[in-house]
Amino acid sequence: MSIGIFGPSGAVGKELLRLFEKASLDQVRLFGSLSVGEKIPYRGGFLTVERSERAHELDFAILCTESAVSRQLAPSLQKAGTIVIDHSSAFRLEERVPLVIPEINLAALKKHEGLISSPNCTTTIMLLPLAPLHRRFGIRRIIVSTYQAASGAGAPAVEELQEEALAFLQGRPFERKISPHPYAFNLFTHPSALNQEGYAEEEVKMVQETRKILADPHIQVSATCVRVPVLRAHCESLNVELKNSCSREEAVALVRGATGVTLLEDWKMNRFPMPVDATGEEKVFCGRIRMDKTQPNTVELWVVGDQLLKGAALNSFQILQILREHAENNP
Amino acid sequence: MSIGIFGPSGAVGKELLRLFEKASLDQVRLFGSLSVGEKIPYRGGFLTVERSERAHELDFAILCTESAVSRQLAPSLQKAGTIVIDHSSAFRLEERVPLVIPEINLAALKKHEGLISSPNCTTTIMLLPLAPLHRRFGIRRIIVSTYQAASGAGAPAVEELQEEALAFLQGRPFERKISPHPYAFNLFTHPSALNQEGYAEEEVKMVQETRKILADPHIQVSATCVRVPVLRAHCESLNVELKNSCSREEAVALVRGATGVTLLEDWKMNRFPMPVDATGEEKVFCGRIRMDKTQPNTVELWVVGDQLLKGAALNSFQILQILREHAENNP
Repeated sequence: MSIGIFGPSGAVGKELLRLFEKASLDQVRLFGSLSVGEKIPYRGGFLTVERSERAHELDFAILCTESAVSRQLAPSLQKAGTIVIDHSSAFRLEERVPLVIPEINLAALKKHEGLISSPNCTTTIMLLPLAPLHRRFGIRRIIVSTYQAASGAGAPAVEELQEEALAFLQGRPFERKISPHPYAFNLFTHPSALNQEGYAEEEVKMVQETRKILADPHIQVSATCVRVPVLRAHCESLNVELKNSCSREEAVALVRGATGVTLLEDWKMNRFPMPVDATGEEKVFCGRIRMDKTQPNTVELWVVGDQLLKGAALNSFQILQILREHAENNP
Repeated sequence: MSIGIFGPSGAVGKELLRLFEKASLDQVRLFGSLSVGEKIPYRGGFLTVERSERAHELDFAILCTESAVSRQLAPSLQKAGTIVIDHSSAFRLEERVPLVIPEINLAALKKHEGLISSPNCTTTIMLLPLAPLHRRFGIRRIIVSTYQAASGAGAPAVEELQEEALAFLQGRPFERKISPHPYAFNLFTHPSALNQEGYAEEEVKMVQETRKILADPHIQVSATCVRVPVLRAHCESLNVELKNSCSREEAVALVRGATGVTLLEDWKMNRFPMPVDATGEEKVFCGRIRMDKTQPNTVELWVVGDQLLKGAALNSFQILQILREHAENNP
């Protein structure tokens, strides 16, 4: 079965190709626009980036592209019978498009019509430990403040943060091209577009995608998203009000048992998840689970996940593998 | 009137001396332990750090010392008739000791018995914009996640963060001596001691000191404190439930009118306070004031303040100036 990666030179595309290599996938083709002709090492040889227009006869396509590009590419690929997995926000809220985190709502995948969306990274990282809490106790309201890494703004943003930090430390001037604000030893609220109520697009995604993935339109989410000078793992501080009474022990047991989650809390050593723990890791780390005594049935959690892996490439890779297996079993 | 600074070589002591210099204060003496004999430039000349034991006949003493040292120094200074302003947490919760942010509870200062405490930096920065909201609408519950700078761990921590970042960027190994965890391009939950319910000392301070300063033992606070790789300004994401109905316009007007606070929110430019805005500034910056639609009467705010200035040295300096003025008017 042939698989195409669209946007293989970006931060997510590169991670995806690494996952493909680890799984020894063959019949892989790469498609791009600016990077056409580029040779990318793969399994001892090279893959050449082709023009997107040449993408015919693909069984699967994973789009690591901006929303506008995904909106252009997806319909024609679908028409040609290719099953499309899209990382962008273009189709996530469309009713006919499943928005899938395999550990949480695998069932939604069964009803796809040739197009599946992979959620926003911050939402995926948050929901992995929360899904079992929701199933057992019901989530009424989430207040979340994020600590998001540079990788969320793409590979060049990660590069630029390091260049700016080096210039700062060496007392040299530095001209930013990507970050909208000084970033070295600084931080800023998420620069995505603000709605009329003052919430950033990234924050609204966390509300809407949470409701769709957990299949509960009543869950309340209020998010404050912040970019911090970290390279590629997101952290999130969660205050979660449940509908039913839950003890710390029950919450810890559910998080410990959650698929895709590693519980990391050493109270004696005061040691909880950090970006360096999650970087390059497939699991999301969760810890510092505390009962918020200021309100009944309320739990606080600290979650850290690799933005490029479970936050993006790994999630779509898991979806692909499930679809491939299904196709092989149902030829 | 003679004034002694205890611990003049630390991050807070240095800022305090800068404020003294700006205000052209004379009769200033410096006291320390490790730094005894050190000559510190002041108003064109030098001040020599003396042994703390030699501190006699001071009218005022500002302690920029650890709790344990403050506990030793304060009683004998008080006995000698010196009015003591302490930065540490040693006496903050004692009933007879006023815990003062002059913009908020100046009245408490009048009842001092020779010892005044200056609050925890994170609490001070949070309360400056919240105090007028509390007076007008009553605060029921605060959920706060912090983004705290290295300066909170002292001047050597600020130095070490930069050294570690430089080593990281140059691909050199680095041995940390101060930070308990990797800090360059990383972050970690506050390393202060955890209580039985899992809250760090820093987080408990925010609960207890808020209640004392706002003189309301019923205010609920749940805090998650986090160290981020920023040099000297703290940020805080606040979700504040009020007792009475409040519109965004009313909240904004109160914050705009709050003494010691600069409202900084440009919704069109998506521009809100950042650590670089607050660094070296005496005001605390507040912005991104939003109504949290997930719950009635709930406001979200983003606050940034220089940890060393309003978070510490500036607050005690303001207290000193008020006390000096009072002493001059009531000889």
